[in-house]
Amino acid sequence: MTYRLYYSPAACSLAVHIVLEELGQAFDLQLVTSTWEASYLALNPKGRVPVLMIPGERQPLTELPVILTYLARRHPEAGLLPDDALAEARCHEWLAWLAGWVHGMAFGALWRPERFVSDPQVHAMIQANGKALILDSFLSIEERLAAQDSSPAPGFTLVDPFLLVLYAWGERINLPMAKDYPAWASRTQTTLARPAVARALNREGIHLELAATPHRPA
Amino acid sequence: MTYRLYYSPAACSLAVHIVLEELGQAFDLQLVTSTWEASYLALNPKGRVPVLMIPGERQPLTELPVILTYLARRHPEAGLLPDDALAEARCHEWLAWLAGWVHGMAFGALWRPERFVSDPQVHAMIQANGKALILDSFLSIEERLAAQDSSPAPGFTLVDPFLLVLYAWGERINLPMAKDYPAWASRTQTTLARPAVARALNREGIHLELAATPHRPA
Repeated sequence: MTYRLYYSPAACSLAVHIVLEELGQAFDLQLVTSTWEASYLALNPKGRVPVLMIPGERQPLTELPVILTYLARRHPEAGLLPDDALAEARCHEWLAWLAGWVHGMAFGALWRPERFVSDPQVHAMIQANGKALILDSFLSIEERLAAQDSSPAPGFTLVDPFLLVLYAWGERINLPMAKDYPAWASRTQTTLARPAVARALNREGIHLELAATPHRPA
Repeated sequence: MTYRLYYSPAACSLAVHIVLEELGQAFDLQLVTSTWEASYLALNPKGRVPVLMIPGERQPLTELPVILTYLARRHPEAGLLPDDALAEARCHEWLAWLAGWVHGMAFGALWRPERFVSDPQVHAMIQANGKALILDSFLSIEERLAAQDSSPAPGFTLVDPFLLVLYAWGERINLPMAKDYPAWASRTQTTLARPAVARALNREGIHLELAATPHRPA
């Protein structure tokens, strides 16, 4: 029995994929092509990835920050969370905000406007608001990383794989990531230099631009 | 120096208030009348309660599940989280879903539609969707509590104060809580029997109906 991760390529499940590679634990990847198929909903009624199946445990574990934290605490030798309680809380603070606000609210509104309102005529308005929330939160991420205010922890922690996912999403929506967010690009470069990270990205077919390039029109 | 909690009465900050009472630690309460005043935004740019100031720490701690978890782990003698890593993860899974989906998405849409779209003409549509998400998630809460599937843990954990807050919010929007959600009402009654919980509710001026009463028209 090994860990089994249900994932979609380049979705936020990539953060768990990276952490599993970092841990050096055996794991299976199970591709999810639709989170709304009956067979998947039977596994996770929330209809989301990631889901982690844990050896010896019948119930799947859901919620990205929760899965990341569980793995880090179950395998403390990997050092993916600081030992100090407050430094650890700072990592959780980042994860909660990235998951709840930046992913759930901002990207949720841009990519899943139907979650917010059923009338398709209103979707463009929801999406425009989502885009504005993304720009606002990306600026906040850049400022905090540039300030180096010791939050998140200076080394590689659970926050970094999630920041990497969001950086990739910024590229996907044609934001000039390396140009507009240089501190974030620099941190991403450090993350990418880790062999475990490179393995996960390679397997999911993801390539990131880390040098400033002319802005492609959206 | 003691903990200082920035709160609004009956907001989700009530869950932290309850936990501080449970810990038996000295703490101050600081009432927040507007989360969008410049003085409060200087403290928490996210414009939300709760915020916890920690003795000896300059930076406020934000995000409800993070504050709750920090307090539980800093004061393990209170037993507010299970010792077992997986049982603890189940508590975090509840907290993440209650905070991100039930509070952030569902109640967020009902009470703060302007977060989702600026045009006031669309607010009623957003709010109707929020109400539907609330009913859907409340049913899910009831089913899981009724199934007694060991999640959350059988005793009092960090999840219970948050479930209590959401129960109170259900009453506030005139849902027949005790009638429609009997397992949840029963768990709430157990929670309310704790002296620390009663102190916090009393101080915030909150009274809950736990016996089924005729449904008040909404």
